[in-house]
Amino acid sequence: MNISIIRYILCRVLEFQALFLALPCLTAICYQEKEGWAYAAAAFGCLAIGAVGKMKKPKSTVFYAREGFVAVSLSWIVLSLTGALPLYLSGEFPSYTDALFETISGLTTTGASILSSVEELSRCNLFWRSFTHWIGGMGVLVLILAVLPLAGGYNMYLMRAESPGPTVGKLVPRVKHTARILYMMYIFLTAVQIVLLLLTGMPLFESLTLSFGTAGTGGFGVSNDSIGGYSLASRTVITIFMILFGINFNVYYLIRAKKPLQALKHEEMRYYLGIILVAVLFITANIRGGFQSLFEAFHHAAFQVASIITTTGYSTVDFDKWPEFSKFILVLLMFVGACAGSTGGGIKVSRIVIMMKLVKNELSYLIHPKRVRQIHFEKHVVNKDVLRSISVFFIAYALIYGISVLLISLDELDFTTNVTAVAATLNNIGPGLAQVGPMSNFDVYSQPAKYVLMFDMLAGRLELFPLLLLLTPATWKRR
Amino acid sequence: MNISIIRYILCRVLEFQALFLALPCLTAICYQEKEGWAYAAAAFGCLAIGAVGKMKKPKSTVFYAREGFVAVSLSWIVLSLTGALPLYLSGEFPSYTDALFETISGLTTTGASILSSVEELSRCNLFWRSFTHWIGGMGVLVLILAVLPLAGGYNMYLMRAESPGPTVGKLVPRVKHTARILYMMYIFLTAVQIVLLLLTGMPLFESLTLSFGTAGTGGFGVSNDSIGGYSLASRTVITIFMILFGINFNVYYLIRAKKPLQALKHEEMRYYLGIILVAVLFITANIRGGFQSLFEAFHHAAFQVASIITTTGYSTVDFDKWPEFSKFILVLLMFVGACAGSTGGGIKVSRIVIMMKLVKNELSYLIHPKRVRQIHFEKHVVNKDVLRSISVFFIAYALIYGISVLLISLDELDFTTNVTAVAATLNNIGPGLAQVGPMSNFDVYSQPAKYVLMFDMLAGRLELFPLLLLLTPATWKRR
Repeated sequence: MNISIIRYILCRVLEFQALFLALPCLTAICYQEKEGWAYAAAAFGCLAIGAVGKMKKPKSTVFYAREGFVAVSLSWIVLSLTGALPLYLSGEFPSYTDALFETISGLTTTGASILSSVEELSRCNLFWRSFTHWIGGMGVLVLILAVLPLAGGYNMYLMRAESPGPTVGKLVPRVKHTARILYMMYIFLTAVQIVLLLLTGMPLFESLTLSFGTAGTGGFGVSNDSIGGYSLASRTVITIFMILFGINFNVYYLIRAKKPLQALKHEEMRYYLGIILVAVLFITANIRGGFQSLFEAFHHAAFQVASIITTTGYSTVDFDKWPEFSKFILVLLMFVGACAGSTGGGIKVSRIVIMMKLVKNELSYLIHPKRVRQIHFEKHVVNKDVLRSISVFFIAYALIYGISVLLISLDELDFTTNVTAVAATLNNIGPGLAQVGPMSNFDVYSQPAKYVLMFDMLAGRLELFPLLLLLTPATWKRR
Repeated sequence: MNISIIRYILCRVLEFQALFLALPCLTAICYQEKEGWAYAAAAFGCLAIGAVGKMKKPKSTVFYAREGFVAVSLSWIVLSLTGALPLYLSGEFPSYTDALFETISGLTTTGASILSSVEELSRCNLFWRSFTHWIGGMGVLVLILAVLPLAGGYNMYLMRAESPGPTVGKLVPRVKHTARILYMMYIFLTAVQIVLLLLTGMPLFESLTLSFGTAGTGGFGVSNDSIGGYSLASRTVITIFMILFGINFNVYYLIRAKKPLQALKHEEMRYYLGIILVAVLFITANIRGGFQSLFEAFHHAAFQVASIITTTGYSTVDFDKWPEFSKFILVLLMFVGACAGSTGGGIKVSRIVIMMKLVKNELSYLIHPKRVRQIHFEKHVVNKDVLRSISVFFIAYALIYGISVLLISLDELDFTTNVTAVAATLNNIGPGLAQVGPMSNFDVYSQPAKYVLMFDMLAGRLELFPLLLLLTPATWKRR
């Protein structure tokens, strides 16, 4: 393990964190809030440690996959620990653990809160909560790769460890350019949403924060009833942009490269939109009786399906009160998640589709043992390493899921709450059902249970293996 | 597809069913119950159809894996449909659907009942319910293979399709002899349990029926409080035999072959006993406060852990009232299940262990991509086909699980009930939690939901693929 290069990367991450923290500091100045000092102090601290630490150049530039995984997990832990500082220092969170829970929930784009009322928070804290979604959505190391002149073999390893999905393709030959294109598209889409929300009459602060939450598929709101209080037009814009940010960004690259036909034929996007359509129709039919018109039922069904499958977690109504059938569709969507290569979480549509194809293939193998069949996805043969890694991902996922529910059930909350709390954090969604439903919060859990859920949020965002490797002794041995 | 040979096998299965049905008929004669006529009629019907149908010899003896899967699934469906007849004709079940649910629950060794009181049933019906567990535990086709002079290549295919576990090894070179040895050991162990229960002072009828239920890891009781009303000694005998019947029968073969050291080193058995030990200790500590003594807490914890991990489903107390932590340990054990090659259900300990090893291997692969590692189990390298089939089994399992819960949630029962009802049927356990807890029954579900659960019970017992193949159009095409 090349420790020195990891130290170097962490120092650069701290410098970027200082930059991020400057934004809520500016917000505090605009709104003349005294909590701004906490951000200034945290930013200065990060900048100082980062600048001093990076002065000593790394001894060796040897960099392999394991260095990539470790660098990414540690970066996220460092961002969480430092990002929680101003929230805690502002005095608006009861403990550092709670501030840390909120920050990890923000960065991992989960959106699960421990607060019973967000409306009492200062503007700079609200801004920071939402902005962490935006940073975490596309990824910090991807941003660093896009901006800094990092040369050498480690770019791809870092990108792979941070980006979601079974495979990470480069859009263009150079990783740096790929990262840049991704961020350009991300910024463009976010800007369009902000403008559209402003046009629907939403104030600037809400337009900014809610767009950050949508873009990162995060879910922190700035009012207690999440999105329930906004106009139909605003809610519709958010619905559409949640769906857009859940699409594989390769699709937007194809559109940008003037290949719209290829973009339309994107297999993962088609399955994703198909699942959304079917889920919305079933839920609309199921909840029809509880609403005044068919359109209203459809509107709320579409919003909630988009919010859950993209793992955003905004809500317009208390879906915990919906019929069991609709609620269980939402629970299933929590696991499906958005497309790979998007800002959304969950298992990812491509993994689900490839797993379905694996089952189909096994049946055909049992019928005709001698006929060899390959699995195709996006018009390519899926290679054996990818198939194995998808299966193993699913197994590891189920293991972490089971162990997490077991650990938090020591708190003696009910079965539904525990099972959906882990589903909501491991898949980076936010609200679950029952006591962690959309109108409740995660403060019902004890401090140890909160640490389990924090682990799940990070494990979910980084797709399990980076965090598991951190806990594996072999990772730390010399080569 | 060679339809004619499948027809021939189904006719032989019907003849065996006639033989099985004769036993409750005898019970009715002993206890002078009028319901005996229903068994006589059903037995005669099966015998007649079987004898007439098998007169026409099969046109071709071509027999491959797919014929094996189809023959086994159809055999189980035929056994269920005919086995439900006497229950329905006796007038003690409200509908044929309910009688069918009870029969499938019996044959698949699930033990989930739709009856609120079993004490009102006639003795012959009680005997039949328990005896179906015993038949289903080791398997009907295994019995036929042991008894009939069936020659030809199809023995192994039938054995493989009916026996649980990722791989099915022959104990001795010939399938016929393997099947015979398995049944000899099964009969021997059952007989020992009956004698021991008689020695603890249990009446003959209870000793017989409860031993059938233990041997098949079924779970139907003959009194309303399951095993709660029997003496400490009886409950202890049942605890020990539940654990014994959950062990891979290869272990008993090794003991019989005078290789006790090899038997002790059996990897799957060691993990199985280790899991039981850990679970009992945790639950004992967790439920201690609810019992008068530590021993009492330990006794009930051991009974319940043994009952759930072996997928038997007997209960001594209402574990639905236990703390959430203990309940969730039981839910996890529902999925783990017993050893492969035992009469128990669930995912099976060997699959779980191999899946854990797959995750460990993947982590080591990420650290050292160039170092190729193989997975060992029971001192052998696990080959790639087996690894793939285990992963795909797990994926198919999760798919069926999710779809089943979705379908039964149309009944609008609560989340805990739905999630554990499918866990309890797909893993062939019996009781779940909440409204399908140990002191409740499955009559809370509508008829359509009962059919979903019947499918799950059969799919669980036959390990998914035989039943899935029955629903795959390609299975039915000519070669």
